[in-house]
Parts: sequence; C-alpha cells; structure tokens
Amino acid sequence: MKVRLGEVCQLIGARLEGESEYVIEGVCSLEDTGPARICFAEGNRYLQKVQSVAEGTVVIVNSDFPDIPGHRLLRVEKPRHAFIRVTELFLEPMAAEGIHPAASLDGSASIGDKVSIGACATVAADAMIGAHSIIQSGARIGPGVVMGQGCLIEANAVLMSGVTLGDRVVIHAGAVIGGEGFGFVWMDDHHHKVPQIGTVEIGDDVEIGCNSCVDRAALGVTRIRRGTKIDNLVQVGHNVDVGEHVIICGHSGLGGSATIANQVMIGGGAIISDHAEVGERAMVGGGSGVPGKVDAGDSVLGIPARSIRRAKREFAAVSRLPELLKAFKSQTRELEALQARVAELEEVKNSG
Amino acid sequence: MKVRLGEVCQLIGARLEGESEYVIEGVCSLEDTGPARICFAEGNRYLQKVQSVAEGTVVIVNSDFPDIPGHRLLRVEKPRHAFIRVTELFLEPMAAEGIHPAASLDGSASIGDKVSIGACATVAADAMIGAHSIIQSGARIGPGVVMGQGCLIEANAVLMSGVTLGDRVVIHAGAVIGGEGFGFVWMDDHHHKVPQIGTVEIGDDVEIGCNSCVDRAALGVTRIRRGTKIDNLVQVGHNVDVGEHVIICGHSGLGGSATIANQVMIGGGAIISDHAEVGERAMVGGGSGVPGKVDAGDSVLGIPARSIRRAKREFAAVSRLPELLKAFKSQTRELEALQARVAELEEVKNSG
Amino acid sequence: MKVRLGEVCQLIGARLEGESEYVIEGVCSLEDTGPARICFAEGNRYLQKVQSVAEGTVVIVNSDFPDIPGHRLLRVEKPRHAFIRVTELFLEPMAAEGIHPAASLDGSASIGDKVSIGACATVAADAMIGAHSIIQSGARIGPGVVMGQGCLIEANAVLMSGVTLGDRVVIHAGAVIGGEGFGFVWMDDHHHKVPQIGTVEIGDDVEIGCNSCVDRAALGVTRIRRGTKIDNLVQVGHNVDVGEHVIICGHSGLGGSATIANQVMIGGGAIISDHAEVGERAMVGGGSGVPGKVDAGDSVLGIPARSIRRAKREFAAVSRLPELLKAFKSQTRELEALQARVAELEEVKNSG
Repeated sequence: MKVRLGEVCQLIGARLEGESEYVIEGVCSLEDTGPARICFAEGNRYLQKVQSVAEGTVVIVNSDFPDIPGHRLLRVEKPRHAFIRVTELFLEPMAAEGIHPAASLDGSASIGDKVSIGACATVAADAMIGAHSIIQSGARIGPGVVMGQGCLIEANAVLMSGVTLGDRVVIHAGAVIGGEGFGFVWMDDHHHKVPQIGTVEIGDDVEIGCNSCVDRAALGVTRIRRGTKIDNLVQVGHNVDVGEHVIICGHSGLGGSATIANQVMIGGGAIISDHAEVGERAMVGGGSGVPGKVDAGDSVLGIPARSIRRAKREFAAVSRLPELLKAFKSQTRELEALQARVAELEEVKNSG
Repeated sequence: MKVRLGEVCQLIGARLEGESEYVIEGVCSLEDTGPARICFAEGNRYLQKVQSVAEGTVVIVNSDFPDIPGHRLLRVEKPRHAFIRVTELFLEPMAAEGIHPAASLDGSASIGDKVSIGACATVAADAMIGAHSIIQSGARIGPGVVMGQGCLIEANAVLMSGVTLGDRVVIHAGAVIGGEGFGFVWMDDHHHKVPQIGTVEIGDDVEIGCNSCVDRAALGVTRIRRGTKIDNLVQVGHNVDVGEHVIICGHSGLGGSATIANQVMIGGGAIISDHAEVGERAMVGGGSGVPGKVDAGDSVLGIPARSIRRAKREFAAVSRLPELLKAFKSQTRELEALQARVAELEEVKNSG
Repeated sequence: MKVRLGEVCQLIGARLEGESEYVIEGVCSLEDTGPARICFAEGNRYLQKVQSVAEGTVVIVNSDFPDIPGHRLLRVEKPRHAFIRVTELFLEPMAAEGIHPAASLDGSASIGDKVSIGACATVAADAMIGAHSIIQSGARIGPGVVMGQGCLIEANAVLMSGVTLGDRVVIHAGAVIGGEGFGFVWMDDHHHKVPQIGTVEIGDDVEIGCNSCVDRAALGVTRIRRGTKIDNLVQVGHNVDVGEHVIICGHSGLGGSATIANQVMIGGGAIISDHAEVGERAMVGGGSGVPGKVDAGDSVLGIPARSIRRAKREFAAVSRLPELLKAFKSQTRELEALQARVAELEEVKNSG
C-alpha cells in the first residue's frame, strides 16, 4: 500500500509544504522511524525527540510546533487523531474468506452476504448472521443468536443461545456472552439455582475484550448499549444495564442489576456491587469498590469509593497517621504535666 | 407449554382463589407483566407496584400481602422460592441430541447412555462420560477424565487430563479445570517448575463459572466439594480444598493450599492468600484480602480482612482523619498557648 | 517406571545408606506415603510427622535431620529441589502424537519435525511451528505466527496473527496472546479505536497461565522476556515490557506501556497502572495498586503501593484509629477544663 504525501495532507487537513509526490508506505512510532514512514508527536515537549530523528522524516505535529529544517512536518490541530486517520489508510481490510469447509453450520442457520466463517467454528440452529460479519476459527454461535452486519467474533469466543448483537460489534477472543447469571437461593439444604432465562442484548459498535464474560439476565435483558467498549477479563453480571459510550477497563466486575449510565468511565480492577448505580459521565478510579450510588459527573476512588479529592486527602492523611499516633501520645504526656503544674498553682492559691 | 393455575397452586402450596382453569404460559418479572404470565412480589413494599399492573395479572405474593381486587394473587410463605418452582416448570429440558458428526471422540473413550456431544467437541483417550451428560461444541475432555451422570460441559470449556467430576456438575463456557498449578523454585538461575502431577476432584452439583480456572494439585488433589457454586473469572489455585455448599463470587482468587470450609460465602474480587483458612459459614466481603485465618462464623471485610464491624468503624474513622489532623494541629497550638500562660503564672508565683 | 534407590541418590547427591537396589516407583507427599514411593521433608519441624509414617518409608530430608531408625532417609542440602529432580524422573514425556486428522492446517503453514497437533486445532496461513511443539485440541494458531521449538500450546488457547514465541514457551489452556490493545480516543462523538497494529514477542521458557490475556502493541511490540512465568487470569496490556525471570501471580493486571524489570515478583490481584515502572528485583504485594514507580529492590504493598514496612505500620495505625478518635475527644475536653482552670487562676492574679 502506497499513499502520496499530498493525499495524506488532504485526508488530515494539513498544509502541504511541497513534495506532494513523496510516497508513504506505512506508519511508525517516534521511537522507530524510517524512510517512507509517518509518525506523530503531540506537543512541543517532543521537540528534542523530533529533532533527533533522521532528516526527512515525516512527522505529524501540532500547529504551533517549532520548525525543523529538513524534516517533513505536517501541522494539524490534533496530531494523534490525524495519525489514527492515516493509520487506518494502511489497515488491510479483513478479506471475506467465505465459509471454511471445516466450519460446522446448522442447516437452519441464516448466513448473510459475504460472511466469513473460520475452521472449526460452529453456528447452531436458527442463528442469523448479518452480512459482512466475520466469525473466526473455534467461535461458537449458539442457537437463535441474532447478529447484525459487519460483526467480528474472534477465535474461540462464545455466544450462548439467544444472544442479540447489533451492527459492527466486536467480541474478542475467548469472551463468553450469555452465560448463566450467578443466582441461587438456599432451599432444602442446598443452593438452588434461580433459573436464568433472560438474555443479552448488545448495541451497535460495542467491543467486548478477550476472555470477558457477560451473563444473561435471570428474567429480562442484560444490556450493553451502543458504542460501549469493554476491556479484557471483565465480568458483567446478570441484569446489568450498561449505557452508551461507556469505557470499562480490564479486570473490572459489575455485580448483578448494576446500572451504568452513558459515558461513564471505569478504571481497571474496579468492583461495582450488585444493584449499584453509576450516573452519567461519572468516573470510577482503578481498584475502587462502589457499594451504592455514584452521582452523575462525579469522580470517585477507593474502597469504599468516595470523591477522588476526598480519597486522596484520606490517603495522604493515613500516611501521616503513624506520626500522628506518636505525636498524640507525647501531647497527652504534655497535657498531664501541665495539669500537674496547674494543680500545684491552685494549691498555692487555695493555701494562700 | 401450558399449565393451569390450579396445578401451579398445588405445586407451590398456594390457596386457590377460584379459576383453577386459567392457563399460564410463562413467567415474567413485575416490570414486564402480561396475560397468561406469572410473576412474584416478595414483601409488602411492592404493594404499589403490584397495584399498578394490569387487572387480572397473576402474582405470587407473601401470605400477608394486602388484597387487590381484580388481581390474581397466589399467597405463599416464600414467594421467590415458589416463583423458582414455577419457572422450572417452563424450562425446556435440553434435548439429548446425540453425538454430532463433527465431534471428535477417541475410540477408547467410554460414552454413557443418552450423552450429547456438540460439533467440534473432543473427547480424548480413556475418558468416561456419564449418562445424560451434555458436552457442548468446542469443549475439550482430556485423557482419562471421569465424569458422572447428568453433567453439562458448556462450549469451549476445558477439562485437562485426569480430572474427576461427580454427578450433575456444570462447567460453564470457557472454564479450565485441571490446568497446572503455579509453582516454581529458583534453581540454577531460573524459575524451575515444581512438577504439577496431582489432579482435581469436583463433587456432585458443583457449578464453575465462565472462564474460571481450577488448577490441578502439585501432589494430591485440588478439591471442590458437593453443592459449591463458583462464579465467573474465579481462580482456584493448586491444592485448594473448597468445602460443601460454598459460594464464591466473580473475580475472586484462592491462593495455593487455601482451605475453605463448608457453607462459606466469598464476595466478588476477594483474594484469599496461599495457605489461608476460612472457617465454616464464615463470610468474606467483596474486595477483601484474607492473609491468614478467618474463624468459623465470622464476617470479615477489607485489606487485610478484619471483622466487618471493625472494618466499617475503621472506614468511618479514616473518613474523619483529615479533619482530625487539622483539629490536632489546632489543639497543639492551644496547648502551647496554655503552657505559656501557666509558665507566666508560675513566674508570678515564684517572684511573689 | 522403576528407579533403584542407588540411582536416585546419585541424581540428588545423597549419601547412599545401603539398599541401593530398593525400587522406587513414584513420588508422594508426606501426608500420603506408601511403599515404593518417595517423599520429602524440608526442615526439622517435620520430625514428628516423619516419625509417624510407616517404617521403611523413603524420605528426602535436610542434612542435619535427626536419624530415625527403620526409615530410609536421604540427606541432601535442599530437599525440595532434590524432590523436584526425582519427580521429573517419573514425568511421562508427552508423546509426539503427530497431526490429528480432525486438525485443520492451512497449506501454507510450515510444520516442524515431530510436531503434535490435536483434534479441532487450527493453524492458519503462513504460521511456522517449531520442531517438537505440541498444539492441543482446539488451540488457534493465527496467520503468520512464528513459534520456536518444544512449545506447548494447550487446549483452546489462542495465538492471534503475527505473534512470535521463542523456544519451550508454554501457553496454558484458554489464554489469548495478541488480542487488540484497549486504546480509544474520543472523536466525532464516539470512542474511536486507536488501530492496534503492533505485535507480541514472547521469549524462551516463558509460561502464560490459563485464560490470561496478553494484548498486542498499538505500534511496536508487547514483550515478555525469557524465563518469565505468568499465572492464570492475568491481563497484560498493550506495549507492556515484562523483563526476564519475572513472576506474576493470578488475577494481576498490567496497564498499557507498563515496564516491569528483570526478576520482579508481583503478588495476586495487583494492579499496575498504565505507564508505571517497576524496577529490578522489586516485589509488589498481593492486591497492591502501583500508580507510578517502584524502585529496584523495593518491596511495596497497598493501594496506593508504598514500602511494605510503611504499609504495615499504616495498617496497624488505622486499626488504632477508632480508639484515637475517642481519646482525642476526651483530651479535647480535658484541655478545655484546664483552660478554664488557668483562666480562673489568671483572674485571681489580675484581681490580686
């Protein structure tokens, strides 16, 4: 794949400084530049680094980046965004490879146009696969699954029966969507399963990371709304409702019936309790434990989660606590000494 | 599936208030009722909600729930339990689908009566599969695995060689049973593996959640006793002994050789250290870290875990700590001022 | 497999105390001894236990272990190490089973000498599998993967496209290597994916645990260097660099671009933030959260992680905090009382 510098500038809205015919063949990082490659630097703090790369290197920089004679600097407002656009130019679209002969499709499944299905993947009865979707090797599409167009189900991912996916959903390798929720009641001397007969609905443009799990609802629907991105090894319990454009980082867990509003961001390793509610655009710091409610727009941290400002003050206070205990002890002694002195003065007065 | 109201009442021990011929076709939640459906409400706090659903709705309620004319209320002692019983009426039993032609079975494996094995599942040499068990597509049954009757091994779950399962065990999608324990010693300038030649034994009626891992013992047995339920993404280390009827919520981890007694409950994201011991019926709160021993019957919380009452007092105390530091500083100043005043008084006395 | 005691002594450098012809047929633990078995006891604290096992039992003990007439004690400096050596004698080497007819290999893949590939495993285009490697059933080897010699890829593990493995690498069941990193920027009202076009390189003798995930780099390489051992359910983010001979216990997570130097040890459930740096031979305690930098050789604990000594002092101080709050309140009252008494003395003086 080759692209002329002129085309690149047009794509990202950069002023062309001559050489529109220079040919770009790929992207690179600022640490690993080379001829015919393009990289980016966001912010003038990278000046020294950009100066140090070979003459002629193509670098997307911010508008007010200092000039470096000999370098090919493309000035834009948001270098990172521009770089992403250029990178996308060089992404090879996944070829529609058709259905591998070692895939196993139930005769009642409905397979859309230009669908690819890898070796040893299975599609069960009554499943419907939207056009241009890709199902990699070993993925399991359960009975009655409905999948929109342009989805990507990676290797060994599992969609249990009846799960519904919108368009352009990405389920990364090993993720399990629609497993049974974890619900039991103590009955007749054993933990008796609460039947988990609900389902999972996943909106357009959602991504679910590798080996993450989204449980089906006990009754009704576990819902992940459009545009939400979930990292690896995340657990989403039954009947959870995750809003639109939410970010959930790795190793986090959402307990049953938790509600996460639109555009929330949840850091890595956070635990959201059963039935907890996190309001719109709230941020939950990594490693936090949310027992109840986080108001819209709040940023919280810690176990239990409280405002991030409060949490940081408390962390700092705890670090001073051993010294405080010592100081308190010494102050107690001083107070006692003073009490004795006052008692003596009082005695003098009384006896005076 | 259709069931008459009279039969439902008989099943759950509710007094029939006429209409034994009314036909029920399924269950629903109180949020999503409809004709021919049955839902439940546990506790009088749901009165307003029950009043608001359409006339004639069938609701299982507690014995002393207020009467609502026009509704079909079925009174029982434990509405949730009764509802579970009714729901089970409507569960479609998984059909015995036999062995899919795209499954791969070793000739030496022994397959019980009415076993179902899905496409692209594999059963290795000398494995024994009990009658009525279901092995979904892509599940891996290793060499010499012994499985009881009525087990369910979901899609892409893995039973490594030699693992033993009781009856009615459920291994959810993507779980791995019998992986090598994580044991190394530093030897000749590298981490040398301690051979992991033990096995895993899982009792009757155990469930292991999606993408959870149970490691084989170094020597001997990693044991999960009957009736225990383990959620998704849980790690059970080598040589762990988990008792009967234990509940372990998502994202928890049990370090090597930990011992968990009967009927313990462990919240989400808890970490039980290597060799730790949790006594019978103890409760470990979500996100806790248990470094050593929890006595039978205790409830613990926090890192490190202490009694839940103690932990909550400490959480509250920490939240007052920043103010305490300020107050202490000001008290120090007051004490100094007082010391000066007393010194002055003493001077007067002495010079007097 | 049978080994004479004389050979065992020679292997582990133990002095032979007669009976070189006694035959050993396997290893066992001290809890479960038997004839023709060999176990070990490290330290004199096991004396009573060793005395209690049947006469004639073969036990590897430390050099200065007390003599027990009738037992077969093999004295060495490091009983555990010696026991590992003996155990390895009895490990059955995995047989080269060749390529299962139900495996699916792309014609362009290059398969080394004596490679075993299990049923329903897949090897995609242009993959290169080194000699003596074992790919278990259901494992997915993506396009262009390069794997050294003697690797073991367990059941249902996934190597995404282009991943590179050294020699003797073990990828345990269900692990996913080379999933897309979790990188998004907010662009045009949605989370826009930062293309993840880098790769993963894994050094010789590395092990990655069951259901763990190692993401590919955005640009460049996510690297795990030789000899490093990673437990189950661990997340390694994009562009992370993990040094040599590192130990990472279960449920830990390494955020994007984190750097872990050689011989670091990370306990279970620890969270290392994006871009954090952990210096050589540092130790990170279980459940810790590392927000920034840990110096070489340091041992840290807690959220946020601080020196383990400091953290333990602070944990202890927090446990005294509720009492401190009470004591402070009472001291405040005493101070006020004293202030009143001093004021009275001053009044007397002034009026005197």
